[in-house]
Amino acid sequence: MTQIGFIGLGAMGMPMAGCLISAGHQLTVFDVAESRVRSLEERGASAASSPRDAGNGAEALVVMVARGAQAEEALFGEEGAAQGMAEGSAVVLMSTIGPEAVRGLAGRLGERGLRLLDAPVSGGVARAERGDLLIMAGGDPELFARLKPALDAMGSSVIHCGPRAGDGQSVKLVNQLLCGVHIAVAAEALAYAERLGLDARFVFETIRHGAANSFMLEDRGERMLERAFESPKSALDIFIKDMGLVLASAEETGFSAPLADAARRVYEAGAEMGLGSEDDSGVIRTYES
Amino acid sequence: MTQIGFIGLGAMGMPMAGCLISAGHQLTVFDVAESRVRSLEERGASAASSPRDAGNGAEALVVMVARGAQAEEALFGEEGAAQGMAEGSAVVLMSTIGPEAVRGLAGRLGERGLRLLDAPVSGGVARAERGDLLIMAGGDPELFARLKPALDAMGSSVIHCGPRAGDGQSVKLVNQLLCGVHIAVAAEALAYAERLGLDARFVFETIRHGAANSFMLEDRGERMLERAFESPKSALDIFIKDMGLVLASAEETGFSAPLADAARRVYEAGAEMGLGSEDDSGVIRTYES
Repeated sequence: MTQIGFIGLGAMGMPMAGCLISAGHQLTVFDVAESRVRSLEERGASAASSPRDAGNGAEALVVMVARGAQAEEALFGEEGAAQGMAEGSAVVLMSTIGPEAVRGLAGRLGERGLRLLDAPVSGGVARAERGDLLIMAGGDPELFARLKPALDAMGSSVIHCGPRAGDGQSVKLVNQLLCGVHIAVAAEALAYAERLGLDARFVFETIRHGAANSFMLEDRGERMLERAFESPKSALDIFIKDMGLVLASAEETGFSAPLADAARRVYEAGAEMGLGSEDDSGVIRTYES
Repeated sequence: MTQIGFIGLGAMGMPMAGCLISAGHQLTVFDVAESRVRSLEERGASAASSPRDAGNGAEALVVMVARGAQAEEALFGEEGAAQGMAEGSAVVLMSTIGPEAVRGLAGRLGERGLRLLDAPVSGGVARAERGDLLIMAGGDPELFARLKPALDAMGSSVIHCGPRAGDGQSVKLVNQLLCGVHIAVAAEALAYAERLGLDARFVFETIRHGAANSFMLEDRGERMLERAFESPKSALDIFIKDMGLVLASAEETGFSAPLADAARRVYEAGAEMGLGSEDDSGVIRTYES
């Protein structure tokens, strides 16, 4: 691809942009943290001084900010990218911001002759570094086919989930409902083991290969037992956002999701304890207090 | 082992007893359903006409009934096994009835010079048939060592969880907390996918190998999508019992388990819909009504 803009060099965005560079794409990157832009410049990316600058001349503009409001600012703010992009070029929105928000952005981009591919990801930082993400795309199949080579640089499973922008977000919300509950219940189970007078590490090793297994029990359970909360691989605040998106979409469709709701309350209790910017495995502390 | 008694030939007990026979143990079996006793008689077991008869002369008596009240009746009822057993012989309690109930039975057996090894299992019918269960034992280490050859016939992971009768039950409750929540959230997620206008099978295939994975999502999720509820591999009622045991032990120790509590309510809603004797994967119907 001739030219890709990239906005949002966070814990996930940084390795994803790195994978695009490694695959030979020309990147122009923007982030509010200049040091992150510099570190990719050293790897051959061009530095943009604003979102508008990142979008200028880009065939595709990847947006990997954390929140919906940041995506809106990046595209339509005073120095927003949309105003610099050529008609027919595409925004690849890889943040998790919910299907409704994505459809809103797609409509506004469409008014300017710009296209949107919705492409949220799952897998965490380690898999992002290996270009091994699950990417759940929604949007026009022809647009998906055109952008797939770039997505393949970041993900090992790049799935077209449906023809509408937002279809990828919907699949991601189902994914997050499971992930959010699985992390919280791993915390609940390990704290419960301690409360029953058992050694939590022993219980973990005994049951984790059986019917109680989950990816999150293995992954976050290990961090809970190591008490490795302070250098976050994925911050607890992310699940407050994502469980909020899950429950907002549930409410819109009249769907009752009691487990997602219970998990959200657990994360909220963690945030109230000041754990929001720590690793989400720290949610076990809400059960210990 | 010279002689093993076996009480409780349900969906799990039947294949477990079969594994003991295949391993060369002499079994005397009892169940309230005579047809089940007959079918094991054809495989070389002796038929007992009462629990007392099954315990008579047994070096070890395996109890694999569903509930605590049934275990008590089997051991201490009018025709209970305890009265026929020789001093020094052992009861191997493999049902999930909770640590307190097991300790009560261990005390009463001790008054008669009988010993108790607590040994609940996890893994389901298919693994029971292969002798591939996880067995979580609690009790005197010497007793565990003596009984381990028999347990090895039924399980591939036979773990000594602690020196007290009930320690195996405690580990099993942690296991069930996870399993019960994982099944309920699999139902919640797949029903949510449908409500969002997605194809649940497609979503399942897209996300099940990633961070959203759990053993129960794979196993019960498949049955939920196949709508295979009517010939239960594990009845929904079992999780009403087990989540009740989890929450009773939580309450005794002042531990708050909001996800287990939310899952119990989901199973209770299923029972109120008349789904208690169907497969636990049928719990997805509570989300569809």
